[in-house]
Amino acid sequence: MSEERPLNLAEFEQLAQRRLPAMAFDYYASGALDEITLRENRAAFDRLRLRPRMLVGVEHCDSSVELLGRRLEWPLLLAPTAFAALAQPDGEAAIARAAGGAGVTQVLSTLSTVAVEDVAAVAARPLWFQLYVFRDRGLTAELVARAEAAGCEALVLTVDAPLLGRRERDVRNAFALPEGLVAANLPTAESREITSDGSGSGLLAYFEALIDPSLTWDDLDRLVASTSLPVIVKGVLRGDDAALAVEHGAAGVIVSNHGGRQLDSAPASIDVLPEVVAAVDGRVAVLVDGGIRRGTDIVKALALGARAVLIGRPILWGLAADGEAGVREVLALLRAEFDLAMALCGCRTVADIGPDLLWVRSGSGS
Amino acid sequence: MSEERPLNLAEFEQLAQRRLPAMAFDYYASGALDEITLRENRAAFDRLRLRPRMLVGVEHCDSSVELLGRRLEWPLLLAPTAFAALAQPDGEAAIARAAGGAGVTQVLSTLSTVAVEDVAAVAARPLWFQLYVFRDRGLTAELVARAEAAGCEALVLTVDAPLLGRRERDVRNAFALPEGLVAANLPTAESREITSDGSGSGLLAYFEALIDPSLTWDDLDRLVASTSLPVIVKGVLRGDDAALAVEHGAAGVIVSNHGGRQLDSAPASIDVLPEVVAAVDGRVAVLVDGGIRRGTDIVKALALGARAVLIGRPILWGLAADGEAGVREVLALLRAEFDLAMALCGCRTVADIGPDLLWVRSGSGS
Amino acid sequence: MSEERPLNLAEFEQLAQRRLPAMAFDYYASGALDEITLRENRAAFDRLRLRPRMLVGVEHCDSSVELLGRRLEWPLLLAPTAFAALAQPDGEAAIARAAGGAGVTQVLSTLSTVAVEDVAAVAARPLWFQLYVFRDRGLTAELVARAEAAGCEALVLTVDAPLLGRRERDVRNAFALPEGLVAANLPTAESREITSDGSGSGLLAYFEALIDPSLTWDDLDRLVASTSLPVIVKGVLRGDDAALAVEHGAAGVIVSNHGGRQLDSAPASIDVLPEVVAAVDGRVAVLVDGGIRRGTDIVKALALGARAVLIGRPILWGLAADGEAGVREVLALLRAEFDLAMALCGCRTVADIGPDLLWVRSGSGS
Amino acid sequence: MSEERPLNLAEFEQLAQRRLPAMAFDYYASGALDEITLRENRAAFDRLRLRPRMLVGVEHCDSSVELLGRRLEWPLLLAPTAFAALAQPDGEAAIARAAGGAGVTQVLSTLSTVAVEDVAAVAARPLWFQLYVFRDRGLTAELVARAEAAGCEALVLTVDAPLLGRRERDVRNAFALPEGLVAANLPTAESREITSDGSGSGLLAYFEALIDPSLTWDDLDRLVASTSLPVIVKGVLRGDDAALAVEHGAAGVIVSNHGGRQLDSAPASIDVLPEVVAAVDGRVAVLVDGGIRRGTDIVKALALGARAVLIGRPILWGLAADGEAGVREVLALLRAEFDLAMALCGCRTVADIGPDLLWVRSGSGS
Repeated sequence: MSEERPLNLAEFEQLAQRRLPAMAFDYYASGALDEITLRENRAAFDRLRLRPRMLVGVEHCDSSVELLGRRLEWPLLLAPTAFAALAQPDGEAAIARAAGGAGVTQVLSTLSTVAVEDVAAVAARPLWFQLYVFRDRGLTAELVARAEAAGCEALVLTVDAPLLGRRERDVRNAFALPEGLVAANLPTAESREITSDGSGSGLLAYFEALIDPSLTWDDLDRLVASTSLPVIVKGVLRGDDAALAVEHGAAGVIVSNHGGRQLDSAPASIDVLPEVVAAVDGRVAVLVDGGIRRGTDIVKALALGARAVLIGRPILWGLAADGEAGVREVLALLRAEFDLAMALCGCRTVADIGPDLLWVRSGSGS
Repeated sequence: MSEERPLNLAEFEQLAQRRLPAMAFDYYASGALDEITLRENRAAFDRLRLRPRMLVGVEHCDSSVELLGRRLEWPLLLAPTAFAALAQPDGEAAIARAAGGAGVTQVLSTLSTVAVEDVAAVAARPLWFQLYVFRDRGLTAELVARAEAAGCEALVLTVDAPLLGRRERDVRNAFALPEGLVAANLPTAESREITSDGSGSGLLAYFEALIDPSLTWDDLDRLVASTSLPVIVKGVLRGDDAALAVEHGAAGVIVSNHGGRQLDSAPASIDVLPEVVAAVDGRVAVLVDGGIRRGTDIVKALALGARAVLIGRPILWGLAADGEAGVREVLALLRAEFDLAMALCGCRTVADIGPDLLWVRSGSGS
Repeated sequence: MSEERPLNLAEFEQLAQRRLPAMAFDYYASGALDEITLRENRAAFDRLRLRPRMLVGVEHCDSSVELLGRRLEWPLLLAPTAFAALAQPDGEAAIARAAGGAGVTQVLSTLSTVAVEDVAAVAARPLWFQLYVFRDRGLTAELVARAEAAGCEALVLTVDAPLLGRRERDVRNAFALPEGLVAANLPTAESREITSDGSGSGLLAYFEALIDPSLTWDDLDRLVASTSLPVIVKGVLRGDDAALAVEHGAAGVIVSNHGGRQLDSAPASIDVLPEVVAAVDGRVAVLVDGGIRRGTDIVKALALGARAVLIGRPILWGLAADGEAGVREVLALLRAEFDLAMALCGCRTVADIGPDLLWVRSGSGS
Repeated sequence: MSEERPLNLAEFEQLAQRRLPAMAFDYYASGALDEITLRENRAAFDRLRLRPRMLVGVEHCDSSVELLGRRLEWPLLLAPTAFAALAQPDGEAAIARAAGGAGVTQVLSTLSTVAVEDVAAVAARPLWFQLYVFRDRGLTAELVARAEAAGCEALVLTVDAPLLGRRERDVRNAFALPEGLVAANLPTAESREITSDGSGSGLLAYFEALIDPSLTWDDLDRLVASTSLPVIVKGVLRGDDAALAVEHGAAGVIVSNHGGRQLDSAPASIDVLPEVVAAVDGRVAVLVDGGIRRGTDIVKALALGARAVLIGRPILWGLAADGEAGVREVLALLRAEFDLAMALCGCRTVADIGPDLLWVRSGSGS
């Protein structure tokens, strides 16, 4: 990675694209249908303007935040992303090692290519575990039990994927896991293997066959009752749904449109964050993902009321570019950008990042 | 159609463009003047944002709607489009066979290249018949009588074409029907043949000569009185006109700008739909066409108050690409997209698709 | 002009560009500085949306309007443009012949390359005369007297050019009139010849030397008192200025930014038209120019309160493309577009073109 | 500079890019991160529309303004920019000579490549001195003392750079001063030399090592108390900060985002100017920089309440293009554009440039 050292997360994506097979890059990069939401996630951040405060003294800033009773060094988590071994054989384990070094919590996907126990074994910080609910509820319960046993500290229930969004690049590529890669957390051949008959996306068929589209808020009640872990609901885009999540026992809410991969033309997650924050009204933490690529994006999300943010694809770009070292570099770049953005905004602590940092065009002038 | 199987309606258009003579493609594809309205029809849909609901249980969704006393499997009809045989010799009959298989009602154009009786003979579902009013009112009455006799279940009166919009591509191409193709529903050589002297669009001259620009609401009264079929008014873009249509006996209103082919710089039909829905106030069904290319577009139209939508050009792209099978594939793709969009929006029935699904930027934030 | 017959005014511009020397094309086409206003004149029209009325019966429409006691066949005048002979030797006389045939009033520029008497001699309709006020007021009075004597029916006082706007293409080209062309209405060598020393625009230097930048509303009073002709003020972009014009005796106001050639970043004239119409409040006629290229643009201007519109550059494109016949064709195209736009909007007379034709985005929906 | 004489400031930039080594051009041209703010500074000016007044008599206009008790010929100052000798060996001294000839005050950067005494020696007008506060406060006091001794008339305290913004082009280029160039105002090798180890921007490292990020409003109090010169605070983007600056003794405020080089996604300076003007409420002068490239931009800034404006990069483009003569030409072009813009706006004095000159879209119409 000598002569072409990426200077930011966008350059890591370019490098990853050169290094990855098209099927893998497309799987990671693509969004649903016309990718309107995928682009909007980025555009919405770029439209926001920060009003920096001056002369507050920013030599010693503290970027830590509290989340579920723990102190995070900085307000970033790693979003669950499936099949990291498409980028590098070590997959989610490599991410775990890099995340630990950066003081960052990793949310491991149900569909990871390394088993939760193996990831936990190399993770410096406790994992969170992302949960898809399978039609086979016994299998689902077993996943929860393994996550608990592996020391995961929270469950992240994905609620925006009763069916898989139609990602046309995957349909075109007839996406399937290559020889040797499996969904390592799953117990049976049927649930471990992602194959395609060549006529479409293997993952789309997998979801249709195995994932339960009948999930309701009652299932959230049951999940909360069945585990000692806090359950965080991921995939909420409406205030009323966020309030329902809290009422049904969620310990946190992640505002997310699944990286633009589920319902195309859903709003940018950052655009609906304020509505969710207002509806939750401080009862639980609100997190957000979708389009965060710069330290300034993290400041914007926090200014709009997020406790912390998650990034997904950039971690895979780092992994594809240079394995664990690439992930470390991605995290180091983003951390440095965030610290600098805080300082240039005149925020000495994360508590200083408030709504007054966001500039709203007044309508007069231009 | 092996190696290049289109994955969505836009790709069907690309394929059709490769397969069609320029004169035919241009005739189907073009809009009036600068094609502002043509583009705006699409752009307006892409600007709308859907706020999905989560955890409502979407295993068994029902996408049927009621229209004029019939149950439609899903809220789609085929808009009237002239001269389908330009795309494939079998023309409107091929469309009818595919529509029947997909449970979809076809609105046959006055200017179809297959006669209404021949289309009706192969249609699995009753047709609707689109009506242009000719200066020769006897000829017009004969058209209505034939539509009734052929078993059509509704008349669709087009009101936005007292004169034909100026479509410059057709003027440039000196558009005319090729040898062997005629407007098969019309009785005389003059009314069956679309010819050009090379100096402009033959269809433009045809309209000027034969279609009656003096049509008023009183003519609607007379048409309603003259037929046992319900009359639906197509081409309304204002609330006051929609109210007039209802007062003059219309059984339904289609919000339409004729696919951007009549008055250039008319608003996108989806943009004026709410005004029409408010003016009609539930007295009759409101339909909409113009720019619908994705399942999410149908959800958006229904959320804004449409009972159902119509698509026009995509059917012709399917027909040009692969005949009846191409039309079937277009319908299957759109149906699958619509069902998925409903499920991802958390709508178990079409009645669940309400205005709260549309996200409105609040003005603060970004 | 056989194989490449232009179908609209934009295509006439393209053809003119191929036929004209760069210096002439640039002089006609260019705007001031960054040409923001030049582009905005067009963009503002394209943003406006027309809400057509249906079923009003449009077989016999009347597009005539009354202006200064005369009936115009349709609400178009020819804006004053300098140096038509750059496009074709016959220059303003060729325009006059074509204008007469189309029932259109021509506003002859002070800086015409054919003398007012010679233009008047071939004009089928009375001319209007555009007036620049020279530092030499005797010379100015002489111009007025000649216009009166030639039978001009109105004076159009240009008020937005106390100094010439900086048109960088002319500076680059060291714009000057070629051998044999002069400002034919002017009496002296100094005032007839536009020359450049090679270091910049000759016209810019001409204005600085000869045109009076000290003009005030008092000069309008004096002009009105000195002539029997009605005086129309051209170049107003504010309501308060329009009110002043009326109070100082103007018989009409032309909302204009001089085709984007004077103050760059002035608003589009169509965008400020409503403010001017409101301020004038019916006391005199309000006209508008700037960016009108389509029949729908004329409808939009009238819907916003203009009595008539003027076009400038398209006439020169027609002249460059094919002389008098080209001008006739430009006028015929625009007339046909306007008549069709009226009919498709459901306007039987110009009085039917009201503000309700303009669609205003409601803010909800999209 | 014969055949390619630039006609405006943008063309000077193009010429400079051809003449400068990439490292120098990139250093001058670049902004932080994605350069959102850099582009927005320009875009915000281009969105503003001026409503010119007509017939006020503009033969003799007066473009002078009063600032800190002095009369400026026109409301322009030269913003501090580091390292002018990258463009031309004579650097800031050449700028000083050109500025003096144009009647313009130069704000000399702490990081100039010519010492303040040497610049002052050739400056026709008194300089202002821009101050960075070093961790070494003795060194800082020495800078102030030298500026005072050299006859500078004001200190400009930069408050938006507690740390340097991340300019990725400089990181990529491993920006450093070439052999022979130093920060000539600084006393020690460590503070005079800008070097890079090849892994990033040398200036970024310099700031981190030497500039004091702990600066607060109390330091402004101390600076004001320590000098007889008026202190102007540069880098304010919020009304509350501007009010604090006044309360802590600032004699003026410069609204600035450091040319888009510090916090990326800060608003355009012109967009926040009205808020600052309102907060300052006439107590001190408000200046603005960022994106001013046209005479009309200066009118816009004054209409929004600025007393004067500053330009930075264009001076360097002039210097790179043709040394002192290039700077003179840049200033002459901008002065001529400003005078013309005033005249075409109908402003006889700078006092006539008020908020009514700005056109605000009313929301109806388009």
